[in-house]
Amino acid sequence: MDVRTIEQFLELSIGRWRSQRSGHHLAFGHFEEVRSTIDITALAGDDPAVIELCHQHDVAAGAISHPFAMHWQGESDWDENAAFEGSNVLVPVPDLADPKAGRLLRDKGYAETVAAVGRYALQPDGTFLLITEYDRASAEERIWFATPNLRFRVSLIKTRDGNGVMTASFSSEIRSLPSHEQK
Amino acid sequence: MDVRTIEQFLELSIGRWRSQRSGHHLAFGHFEEVRSTIDITALAGDDPAVIELCHQHDVAAGAISHPFAMHWQGESDWDENAAFEGSNVLVPVPDLADPKAGRLLRDKGYAETVAAVGRYALQPDGTFLLITEYDRASAEERIWFATPNLRFRVSLIKTRDGNGVMTASFSSEIRSLPSHEQK
Repeated sequence: MDVRTIEQFLELSIGRWRSQRSGHHLAFGHFEEVRSTIDITALAGDDPAVIELCHQHDVAAGAISHPFAMHWQGESDWDENAAFEGSNVLVPVPDLADPKAGRLLRDKGYAETVAAVGRYALQPDGTFLLITEYDRASAEERIWFATPNLRFRVSLIKTRDGNGVMTASFSSEIRSLPSHEQK
Repeated sequence: MDVRTIEQFLELSIGRWRSQRSGHHLAFGHFEEVRSTIDITALAGDDPAVIELCHQHDVAAGAISHPFAMHWQGESDWDENAAFEGSNVLVPVPDLADPKAGRLLRDKGYAETVAAVGRYALQPDGTFLLITEYDRASAEERIWFATPNLRFRVSLIKTRDGNGVMTASFSSEIRSLPSHEQK
């Protein structure tokens, strides 16, 4: 479907999603299957976690747009005990020159090892492209809506120089709760 | 990577590919894992299979570009006996008005039940988008190169009205044989 603004993309993303994710470990040809529930909730601009994240990155409160929290809970077929859970606070900071691109601030939450800042840009076809550089790797995520209630995500983990792709994963995310029914 | 023309896309595609494909059956949340080998070979414009396909669709031999054959062989985890194999001849017919878009003629090969004609268009980000309408469903495929030796494919099978997505699949395809070493 045609998503034309970052605001529209973020508003469509709010809700509870049932996710099926397949990981491809390219060097070994391994598959991984993950099922999870993802909750994406809008945050107020004056939420303490948002204010703290802005403060850490020297970003003015007025420069941000549509902050949100993600919480996920699921299990992988790689280990029967591998139930996992985590959450993040994410704050988009649109570029002044281009409202379709900007930085995405992310805190450590309670499952990540590092905070990160990614670069996002909405593509002409409505795909949200997010690139996050880490010390030794980079992550490239493409998220797009097929319908308002179905979105797809392709994530690549690359070597830092961008030439090697180590893992690729594909998620199908189906809305399981309309956003207005959420707490 | 930046693919700017259909010719470049098709030339990069020639070769042998080791494919990992994950299918997501959305209504039931099922996963399917498929491993296969895909051989894509260039065909001459005067190959009898190409001439026959052009004839069936009333297409002049001079209107086509870069015909090719695909052959695949693999197995699915859904059934231990589910080894499968098939092949197709495919003929791109570029639009006169736009060399980045056109029709893709496909024969029945020896595994498909129907011949088909799809519409393709190279997207600004280098993704090859192919939409094929069938009687009761439509198929949407997006294929893009991460590097010259790694390509990804997302395929959706939709209801004919385009509103429902029944299955989504994701393939990682790694080149296993340089094109000049192929027969």
